[in-house]
Amino acid sequence: MFRPEIKVLDCSIRDGGLINRWQFSDEFVRETYRALSLAGVDYIELGYKASKEQFDPSVYGKWRFCEDEDVRRIVDGIESGSKLSCMVDIGRVQEKDIAPQNESPFQMIRVACYVKDITKGVALCDMVMDKGYETTLNIMAVSTNTERELDEGLNDLSKTSVPVVYVVDSFGAMYSEDVTHLVNKYRNALPGKIIGIHTHNNRQLAFANTVQAIIDGANFVDGSVYGIGRGPGNCCIELLLSFLQNPKYNLRPVLKLIQEHYLPLSKKIEWGYIIPYMITGVLNEHPRAAIAFRDSPDKDDFVKFYDMLTTPEVDISAVKNLA
Amino acid sequence: MFRPEIKVLDCSIRDGGLINRWQFSDEFVRETYRALSLAGVDYIELGYKASKEQFDPSVYGKWRFCEDEDVRRIVDGIESGSKLSCMVDIGRVQEKDIAPQNESPFQMIRVACYVKDITKGVALCDMVMDKGYETTLNIMAVSTNTERELDEGLNDLSKTSVPVVYVVDSFGAMYSEDVTHLVNKYRNALPGKIIGIHTHNNRQLAFANTVQAIIDGANFVDGSVYGIGRGPGNCCIELLLSFLQNPKYNLRPVLKLIQEHYLPLSKKIEWGYIIPYMITGVLNEHPRAAIAFRDSPDKDDFVKFYDMLTTPEVDISAVKNLA
Repeated sequence: MFRPEIKVLDCSIRDGGLINRWQFSDEFVRETYRALSLAGVDYIELGYKASKEQFDPSVYGKWRFCEDEDVRRIVDGIESGSKLSCMVDIGRVQEKDIAPQNESPFQMIRVACYVKDITKGVALCDMVMDKGYETTLNIMAVSTNTERELDEGLNDLSKTSVPVVYVVDSFGAMYSEDVTHLVNKYRNALPGKIIGIHTHNNRQLAFANTVQAIIDGANFVDGSVYGIGRGPGNCCIELLLSFLQNPKYNLRPVLKLIQEHYLPLSKKIEWGYIIPYMITGVLNEHPRAAIAFRDSPDKDDFVKFYDMLTTPEVDISAVKNLA
Repeated sequence: MFRPEIKVLDCSIRDGGLINRWQFSDEFVRETYRALSLAGVDYIELGYKASKEQFDPSVYGKWRFCEDEDVRRIVDGIESGSKLSCMVDIGRVQEKDIAPQNESPFQMIRVACYVKDITKGVALCDMVMDKGYETTLNIMAVSTNTERELDEGLNDLSKTSVPVVYVVDSFGAMYSEDVTHLVNKYRNALPGKIIGIHTHNNRQLAFANTVQAIIDGANFVDGSVYGIGRGPGNCCIELLLSFLQNPKYNLRPVLKLIQEHYLPLSKKIEWGYIIPYMITGVLNEHPRAAIAFRDSPDKDDFVKFYDMLTTPEVDISAVKNLA
């Protein structure tokens, strides 16, 4: 596939931080930035911007906050043609946390929200666009929305100036036919806007679904190094770069990054194909029950987990530490 | 997807044996058979039938040979509606190794061959059909054949009584569009025959490609427990059963089998998403270089492997133990 409009965004630090509360070493983030720059990735997302009034900096690492001075220190001295991105959630960031773009190392601030909060998400997009940033709106968990809810949200969104809207398979529940249906729906409802795709790998479909979205016309595509991300993780950016025929992309620096940093990390924190996440994907459910289960002594008792989620009379609160 | 004609074949012991020379314990094979029977899997493939004159039984485990008395001992006392299958390769089995079907525990003997050997493959299919077995012909490595070669082979095959012909993505090199192209080609060239699909997971596309083949009309589909199989392995049968809506299939026994037997085994022998196999998949090459590399001290030096396979001046024989 070669289509020059396609932009690749790496979300390794941002989505991977959901596993380890963004406690990555500076070296890890710096080497990620260096390798992805060499690889020609268009956007590198370094975390969330969030208010320190809401998240305790003694618990969460610096990529939960993405303060501009931390970012400058990481990227200092590394040649890069990539743009920097961070993400914000509704209600978890304040306007004062976001500097004007011309004073910030970030070029893009992405907004994540649920369908019910689209108008709030648009307001946040407007705020960051007013400050000079590029933006996208990532509508999460649409596999759980009715068609009517989603159509209404997209109709509202069509009247705004948000330039990029993402199809997000938050629960790793979609098949390629679902992706095709949604990308076509978004394209039809949102004339003039660019469609993005962000997938999760619960059922080993993240890469396949991303390819399908590209075939269907999505031009913003997310990946992460070695698939890092909460639970099953995301679409592997090394697979994505091997698929895209654009000569500006280069696989080799990503392979080096994996062997030197991501493979060792994968032995300390877990992500990938893990049966409880496969089960939540099949059931189209939030991974929170699987996250809690993987943190319990029964973490490999897949049948127990399956029974809990599929047998109505079993009380799910029986899972210790349920988030 | 519900289509009653679809038959699921599990090849865990046969393809998984390529990792460990078929050195599975009797208990492991017996519990695999028990669980897959409970899961409602249509065919369970227990290994290869091969000549002991060609393979040393002190090196290869009993599932390299699949002698009828070994199989009877394994299945004895287990209630099952599943049929038993084994596979034969051209030139690696003799007629005297194969009893008449009414004296054997096997109902099916599958034949694997390359396009250039289709006539030999058909002769072997005819031999086992004459003895009373069901059969399939699995044409390997078609991602490396020219269209003309393949068309000629399929034309020859169309004139035979082989009932089932498989599209096999031996190198894990196919995208869903390739699968659609080949399934349609086989269906058009082979009227009256059933099409099968066997995938490899080098690029995390085994399940997605199997789903695509089913959508395109394939009715024999291979999977393996937890994806076990050489290198990246195969389509996970637990994913396949979760996709197929046929009430005769039951996911729960497979989850139990994974937690009790396949998860522990996966810590002793390796299969799954492993970068050197990803690279051979991207390059549409036999995994042999990756197999040798994973057995070398440099096994995690992905950049070295990538350079070896993509830089013409590097001598690939520099990989120690290259098979």
